[in-house]
Amino acid sequence: MKRETFVFSQKKVDYLFDASFNEIENFFPKEKIIIITDDNLFKHHATRFEAYKVITIPHGEAHKQQATIDNIVQQLLAFEADKQSCIVGVGGGVVTDMAGYAASIFKRGTKLALAPTSILAMVDAAIGGKNGIDVGPYKNMVGTVHQPDVLLFDYSFLSTLPTEEWVNGFAEIVKHACIKDADLFDLLQQNTIEKFMADKAAIAALVERNVAIKTSVVLQDEFETGDRKLLNFGHTIGHAIENIYHLPHGHAVSIGMVAACNISEEINNFYSVDKEKIVKLLEQYRLPVKINIDTDKIWELLLMDKKRNAGNMNFILLNKIGDATIVPIGLIQLKQLVKESL
Amino acid sequence: MKRETFVFSQKKVDYLFDASFNEIENFFPKEKIIIITDDNLFKHHATRFEAYKVITIPHGEAHKQQATIDNIVQQLLAFEADKQSCIVGVGGGVVTDMAGYAASIFKRGTKLALAPTSILAMVDAAIGGKNGIDVGPYKNMVGTVHQPDVLLFDYSFLSTLPTEEWVNGFAEIVKHACIKDADLFDLLQQNTIEKFMADKAAIAALVERNVAIKTSVVLQDEFETGDRKLLNFGHTIGHAIENIYHLPHGHAVSIGMVAACNISEEINNFYSVDKEKIVKLLEQYRLPVKINIDTDKIWELLLMDKKRNAGNMNFILLNKIGDATIVPIGLIQLKQLVKESL
Repeated sequence: MKRETFVFSQKKVDYLFDASFNEIENFFPKEKIIIITDDNLFKHHATRFEAYKVITIPHGEAHKQQATIDNIVQQLLAFEADKQSCIVGVGGGVVTDMAGYAASIFKRGTKLALAPTSILAMVDAAIGGKNGIDVGPYKNMVGTVHQPDVLLFDYSFLSTLPTEEWVNGFAEIVKHACIKDADLFDLLQQNTIEKFMADKAAIAALVERNVAIKTSVVLQDEFETGDRKLLNFGHTIGHAIENIYHLPHGHAVSIGMVAACNISEEINNFYSVDKEKIVKLLEQYRLPVKINIDTDKIWELLLMDKKRNAGNMNFILLNKIGDATIVPIGLIQLKQLVKESL
Repeated sequence: MKRETFVFSQKKVDYLFDASFNEIENFFPKEKIIIITDDNLFKHHATRFEAYKVITIPHGEAHKQQATIDNIVQQLLAFEADKQSCIVGVGGGVVTDMAGYAASIFKRGTKLALAPTSILAMVDAAIGGKNGIDVGPYKNMVGTVHQPDVLLFDYSFLSTLPTEEWVNGFAEIVKHACIKDADLFDLLQQNTIEKFMADKAAIAALVERNVAIKTSVVLQDEFETGDRKLLNFGHTIGHAIENIYHLPHGHAVSIGMVAACNISEEINNFYSVDKEKIVKLLEQYRLPVKINIDTDKIWELLLMDKKRNAGNMNFILLNKIGDATIVPIGLIQLKQLVKESL
């Protein structure tokens, strides 16, 4: 187990890499721990949770809504939780988001630990303190920025992760390579998803490298006034696609990244040959790069996006592989670009 | 208008004393302002709000629940509110709490201004960034600590404040005197509530003095790890009484303060003669000092209180008038003390 400490504005966060889940007890009194997980994960790992109070929520993005939070709050009251209680979110991005949000509002804030169990949650969702719930069809409309006290990476949870979810997670890994790390891009080109699924040391190193990228971006810009927006590469169009076509997050982001590459080529002098490299890498990691799509519907939903700002939308484009930039694009031009890019 | 700026950990807060409500437009673009107020206040001051987007919520503590927040979120979406929107809570403590909470969670945080319109909200609820909603019968079980950008004091709103609400507010003013300001205690002894209701300059000065007391306590201890707890004087038992007997907040706190004085006398060498002075002052400001009460029920609810900590409860006691202290009391002893103090 390797421990690193990062100091955020609100608190310091302990990252525990290559840890065993029960090491959480070294950080919080056992009787103050309340686990939030989903029914799927609970089914696979019930014995790990035997010693703790557990709140189980239904799995899937459809339940990332206020009704589930209402239910969590009732159970926290029943457990007589207080500000010294530690909510431990164990699961994928939906669980870590819900646990983070619950911990930030219950009694104005309890202790929080997150143990991400999917690649996506490990390299992205669980890091940086952002949480959120959806409001009807609109994603992450309500939430807070609330850092966990502890982030625990127990790679043994990955043994039950479906292949589909490995693929999903690699969309964010390719994203990190595209916006920040050309060497990581090379490394990904030289490997396959099967390699990482079979080699525990390789996936551990890859997760740590991606956690470092995301953490460094967040530390430089915790409240998303600047550089943190780069992490939205592929996500603006991706979220709209995800919403309308109910694609898995990674699939939608993959298509969104290709669209953003097309726009980068169109207005940001991004090389066509680099775009082709990115498309090829996404396909290599089994991610889709195109779908038949109603671009008018996508545009309608884009207009509801959080990132809109008066007559412009801030869009993340690539300069080259490993180097991204924020470009405000006028809505009229953007509508045309989106149409052509998909 | 007088402007002071205080720097909290998250942001600086501009206090605008003796201001006109529409001066809010000097701080935020008019089209980004969304007012949250209640139906009572809207009825009395509709013309002041004509130029703005307005969300009206039903008045009263009974509506300080998640269902009202759900409704506010839907209306914010309909107004296409974003992170640059400024939610302006105009009303008493319920409204400023709801507006503050909504602003802290909508799109992970919008701009926030509060224009408290009751004495209680001016000297207490609107200051310090704490917000909260009730969960069923349990008060402020969910909320955040989120400072407003602007606090605007327009005393002309007090013209429509019912006498009952003036009385309520003075409970918190007497509390500030008891825990922090013996000179203020003297000043209150030399005046009456009628005097303050009739004299705009006197109430303005009194509000400013009380705002200064609360702000100074909060600045020293924004996240309530120490001295801020002193502001709970009279509130632990007060909240329980308020809950069970549905008394107005100020009435319940007044009775709670008398109980805390009795306990202070019993175990903290607080002079009986000072206790009598406090009882007399509360009566002078038309506040109740005793009710017939089921102490078992009160005790049951106390055990659910946020301030409980393992086998102890932190209780605020007086050393003398103007000087308070935090005393952890064992639950067994406290049960007996509460029984005898009421």
